[in-house]
Amino acid sequence: MEEKGKIHRLAASPQTVHTGFYDSTIPPVLTIESGDTVRMSSMMLMDGRLHCGMTLEEMLAVRQEYIDRNLGSHTLTGPIFIQGAKPGDVLKVRIQKLVPAECGVNYHFPEDYRRGGLPEDFPAGDMRTLYLDLAKMETLFAPGIVIPLKPFFGNMGVAPRPGEKRPAAIPDYFGGNMDNKELVAGSILYLPVQVPGALFSAGDAHAAQGDGEVNVTAIETAMKEAVLQFFVRKDMKIERPMGETPTHWITMAFHPDLDEATETALRDAIRFLSETRGLTPDEAYSLCSLAVDLRITQIVDDNKGVHAMIPKSIFREVK
Amino acid sequence: MEEKGKIHRLAASPQTVHTGFYDSTIPPVLTIESGDTVRMSSMMLMDGRLHCGMTLEEMLAVRQEYIDRNLGSHTLTGPIFIQGAKPGDVLKVRIQKLVPAECGVNYHFPEDYRRGGLPEDFPAGDMRTLYLDLAKMETLFAPGIVIPLKPFFGNMGVAPRPGEKRPAAIPDYFGGNMDNKELVAGSILYLPVQVPGALFSAGDAHAAQGDGEVNVTAIETAMKEAVLQFFVRKDMKIERPMGETPTHWITMAFHPDLDEATETALRDAIRFLSETRGLTPDEAYSLCSLAVDLRITQIVDDNKGVHAMIPKSIFREVK
Repeated sequence: MEEKGKIHRLAASPQTVHTGFYDSTIPPVLTIESGDTVRMSSMMLMDGRLHCGMTLEEMLAVRQEYIDRNLGSHTLTGPIFIQGAKPGDVLKVRIQKLVPAECGVNYHFPEDYRRGGLPEDFPAGDMRTLYLDLAKMETLFAPGIVIPLKPFFGNMGVAPRPGEKRPAAIPDYFGGNMDNKELVAGSILYLPVQVPGALFSAGDAHAAQGDGEVNVTAIETAMKEAVLQFFVRKDMKIERPMGETPTHWITMAFHPDLDEATETALRDAIRFLSETRGLTPDEAYSLCSLAVDLRITQIVDDNKGVHAMIPKSIFREVK
Repeated sequence: MEEKGKIHRLAASPQTVHTGFYDSTIPPVLTIESGDTVRMSSMMLMDGRLHCGMTLEEMLAVRQEYIDRNLGSHTLTGPIFIQGAKPGDVLKVRIQKLVPAECGVNYHFPEDYRRGGLPEDFPAGDMRTLYLDLAKMETLFAPGIVIPLKPFFGNMGVAPRPGEKRPAAIPDYFGGNMDNKELVAGSILYLPVQVPGALFSAGDAHAAQGDGEVNVTAIETAMKEAVLQFFVRKDMKIERPMGETPTHWITMAFHPDLDEATETALRDAIRFLSETRGLTPDEAYSLCSLAVDLRITQIVDDNKGVHAMIPKSIFREVK
């Protein structure tokens, strides 16, 4: 059983966020020990300047400022330095609680931005505000259409390799803007540590999203409260983020081409099954064909995502 | 409420199957009315010559015969002529019951066949037989690994357009080898009718499969008993197969490139939501981003598959 450590608070503020990039030179805003818990919050995109009730035109005007500054829109709380984390280790992030704000927005860009799954089909762009009923954990999308809320951080990651300045909007081996809707409260995220202290950040709170995130945004919101517990694992080795839910293990891969991402997620699933269950690679490949589900995480973050859902229920203790 | 019609029997035999192709010139083996039910069965691949206990070498020898004859391995029961079905109509297939045989096989081809999701990783190929416990509806894959059985036809389709002879292994607008694991008993398949009588066929029984079917096969088996009810729908218009389960509507798309298949499945989901729920296209696109899941049906049938899962639960009656 993993020990319980100290509890820290980390409220999102101009002093505790960074915007646009993951980069190991960004100084940590909090230092913790393995086993510690952080009660944190996050702003909406663009340093919280994205907000409910905003029009598409207002959003595009703010977005233009960030484009002009060569800056992405992702604002992340952190980085958090986890003592003892060394390159080659794994940072285990236990997601204990996630409470979004009372509203959020969803939008697609006009066609000439070339963003989203079908930019040419939606030349004008569009934006809507959604009020979030946190008691019922649902939102009314339109008359008669009610979407359940399943909040998660679209963006969680560690600093990339030294010398790499990575756009926070493009997920890769260090995590980042994975937009994996399985990473709700009760799930675990595993990230491969690249630099001492790991330097974990999180943001891009989503109140709900489908696999695909097809119009480029989820219900974009702030995270009023997130409770995350961190552990440094010296006994694991991963090249890319992995997830774990109460019911599944999840391998994740990222590539501009979905076919390539699929192959990588599949190879990682085969390796995981071989290493943890003693299967031969042939057995693991076969088992993936019969029982592992490939899903499209998102198609809009330049590196698209595919994740493989490996069900825990198929594994029974051998008597 | 749809009427109940007659019940027909259609046992798979050399006289009631066709192998390798969908083609509107194949004469029907049964003629029924809209509303009728067919209790049918299907053979394993290659006219039932694929069988449990077979070695990889034996399978490859049989497969070579089919390659030499320019014939695919898919053996389908049918075609069934549904009276009144006209090009432009929709054939609704209500899947009432599916009972597989007591065993099945899973295999991947040697690398030089260039089949499967990762041919270069598995140069030798592999094959295994799995015994199916139909009382418990599960199979023991390896010690401590138990896979639940969820039988479905990997291959269901109507005849393609006149003049087209389509490989039964490659799914497309007429259905065929879709390998969609959602099409279990209790689900509905909608197919766009291309020729008078629709000419429906089914085969490639699967006892279990993950989304992806990554090593090129599921648990390949025979269908001992399948109960399908057919309806001609004049009030629907679809370009590609659609599915319906108790919980979801499903759009499906097929393309050698997953990115292309994804766009088509998404466009179909947006069109479905606009036409059936009165949403504007912008609203439908947004709703897909928030609540519709894109999944990878299979990556191994030359035309790969992506399906979009549209949850019924988000739609509530407006009071």
